[in-house]
Amino acid sequence: MLSKAEIRRIRSLGDKAGRQAEGVFVVEGEKLVGELLGSGFRVRELYRVGENLSAAEMERISFLRTPTPVLAVAEIPTAPASPTSFEGLCLALDGVQDPGNAGTILRLADWFGIREVYCSPATADCWSPKVVQATMGAIFRVRVHYGPLERALAGAAEAEIPIYGTFLEGENIYGCNLSPNRGVVVMGNEGRGISPSIAALITKKLYIPPYPPSASGPTSESLNVAMATAIALSEFRRR
Amino acid sequence: MLSKAEIRRIRSLGDKAGRQAEGVFVVEGEKLVGELLGSGFRVRELYRVGENLSAAEMERISFLRTPTPVLAVAEIPTAPASPTSFEGLCLALDGVQDPGNAGTILRLADWFGIREVYCSPATADCWSPKVVQATMGAIFRVRVHYGPLERALAGAAEAEIPIYGTFLEGENIYGCNLSPNRGVVVMGNEGRGISPSIAALITKKLYIPPYPPSASGPTSESLNVAMATAIALSEFRRR
Repeated sequence: MLSKAEIRRIRSLGDKAGRQAEGVFVVEGEKLVGELLGSGFRVRELYRVGENLSAAEMERISFLRTPTPVLAVAEIPTAPASPTSFEGLCLALDGVQDPGNAGTILRLADWFGIREVYCSPATADCWSPKVVQATMGAIFRVRVHYGPLERALAGAAEAEIPIYGTFLEGENIYGCNLSPNRGVVVMGNEGRGISPSIAALITKKLYIPPYPPSASGPTSESLNVAMATAIALSEFRRR
Repeated sequence: MLSKAEIRRIRSLGDKAGRQAEGVFVVEGEKLVGELLGSGFRVRELYRVGENLSAAEMERISFLRTPTPVLAVAEIPTAPASPTSFEGLCLALDGVQDPGNAGTILRLADWFGIREVYCSPATADCWSPKVVQATMGAIFRVRVHYGPLERALAGAAEAEIPIYGTFLEGENIYGCNLSPNRGVVVMGNEGRGISPSIAALITKKLYIPPYPPSASGPTSESLNVAMATAIALSEFRRR
């Protein structure tokens, strides 16, 4: 049986402060917990209905609308001392704030074989229960680093790794040269796009044109950041 | 002041049955109502806080968490007698059931200059308040038809319009010939994909490969249907 304090503690992992205090996050559901167990992540606790807690207790600790029979608490991997390896093609998220978008982008990264995603501190926390579940396991396969993006990208620039970002004044992504296996693709905030300090580090500005291309620019709402990521990564990887 | 019956009636437009009984749908927010007024849609009612209702009444009729000062009730366009024009490149949704995916797909259709989207009866209702808001106005620019897809696609097949769909055994979309300005792209249900009766009408099967391409098929979860739509339409339109 779980004590009130234990229940409160697991509930606290729904907040970033609670996760950071302990360096752990929550994984739920048979499929996702199965993937967690098959990954290199360290598992601290495993709760199973009928084994070490009741269905009623699971309802109290679960972050899902419909709780499943299993919930795990796992360690958030500690960032490597130098997070500037930039292996292959990488993503950098500059203040993507919607957790749904962050989860979709991690899933896309996994689909397109991207191994590293660098996130600015203002980016939605990928270790929140909502994002972890939305990634469908991608979070176990893609390395996520949080930290100042300026510093990380300055390191990439020094190593002469191309840094891409999408801008209205960029070059048409469908026609220009892209390095399919080396580089960082920066995706910006939903409302403000890429911040000025990061824009200054971009070495190649790209533009995703609407169809039909219009001289006066897009007439429809701009693309959602997750859709823009899908289109951009597809362009890098098809080449 | 709104009567209780009037409030109940507007609330009933949150359900498909309520919308179908009257043939109307709800649009909220200054920006979206502005786009509605600029479109060819017929507006039946317009509610403005401080004009014909109070802020408290708006809270009762609004479908948004944070109500805005304007809400409109507009007519759902009646389907043309023959919905089989298949002008340019079109989309067909075969049981896409998540309203968020349906909204994202309409936004993508708008972005990629697609004018017609054919939806099977099992597809999420694009006239629900949630989808209308999620389309960010695309619903006013893209014609949406509901009806049996088999019949509509049989008409396209008769007119020798190519019918595309994504399948694991399809041809790599990045390398094959596509007709960029003529055809129907069918997107299937989130779990079951394209139904057998529709699959029988597909004239060209496409495959979106993960990266790196793997002989044993994708190792990660398959792409979300909205992301697959983004990648597929991008491939058609870049050519």
